[in-house]
Amino acid sequence: MTNASATWVEDMMFVAQGDSGHAIVMDASESAGGHDLGSRPMEVLLMGLIGCTAMDVISILKKKRQPVEGLKVFASGDRNSENPMYFTHIHLEYVAYGRVDAQALARAVELSETKYCGASATLKGVAKITTSSRVEPGPTAAA
Amino acid sequence: MTNASATWVEDMMFVAQGDSGHAIVMDASESAGGHDLGSRPMEVLLMGLIGCTAMDVISILKKKRQPVEGLKVFASGDRNSENPMYFTHIHLEYVAYGRVDAQALARAVELSETKYCGASATLKGVAKITTSSRVEPGPTAAA
Repeated sequence: MTNASATWVEDMMFVAQGDSGHAIVMDASESAGGHDLGSRPMEVLLMGLIGCTAMDVISILKKKRQPVEGLKVFASGDRNSENPMYFTHIHLEYVAYGRVDAQALARAVELSETKYCGASATLKGVAKITTSSRVEPGPTAAA
Repeated sequence: MTNASATWVEDMMFVAQGDSGHAIVMDASESAGGHDLGSRPMEVLLMGLIGCTAMDVISILKKKRQPVEGLKVFASGDRNSENPMYFTHIHLEYVAYGRVDAQALARAVELSETKYCGASATLKGVAKITTSSRVEPGPTAAA
């Protein structure tokens, strides 16, 4: 069982907390009645997805002894144009930094998407999920 | 288009950021190779869901001029027992505080689940989503 709760603060601002004890803030934009004090819920849904698959990919690359120095995962979600504005298509782009073998990265992404990632497996009943990956041999963007 | 990205920090820790600019931290437990410095990704997926539907419900209650003083939404997710551990069933419990009409709350929940919430509409292709709601006439739990 995985649990989380959200508590209303004011207007459209909520604080959410999960079993692990860590909390995040969500809020709407000013134009949607909020004050932009936190992430939008649909961004948070994408964050859960990319956190899940990114942890898979880094674990697999480490197990394969790939010299990964950095990893970024970018999600772009297309949404239905009317309510409910569900995700129709989510593209995930994986960028590994360091002297990582591109085939090993592609295989790690494939394993996450098909076998391991519970978030992806939950979302893909409705959203078509596509992936791409590439290696940047230089230093990490964060460095 | 809704976008988010995740950047690897170390071990299983990632920082994710969405278009709104706000960031959250995700990490795995010590037993899963992390250091418990942030939310688990599957908790974050639930947080996106409850943030989305909670914003709908508070908006609808306000439009109906219900004297809502507090709102909490609790999510409990059952997951597949093998990889990928997708959500098989998510129960959402809505608790409104104040002299809110229970029927108005139930109707707001129904409208969110069937018409407005894009996160719910994305997840329910795979996860069965059920709801319950109740009113606590006293002061908010947060007060």
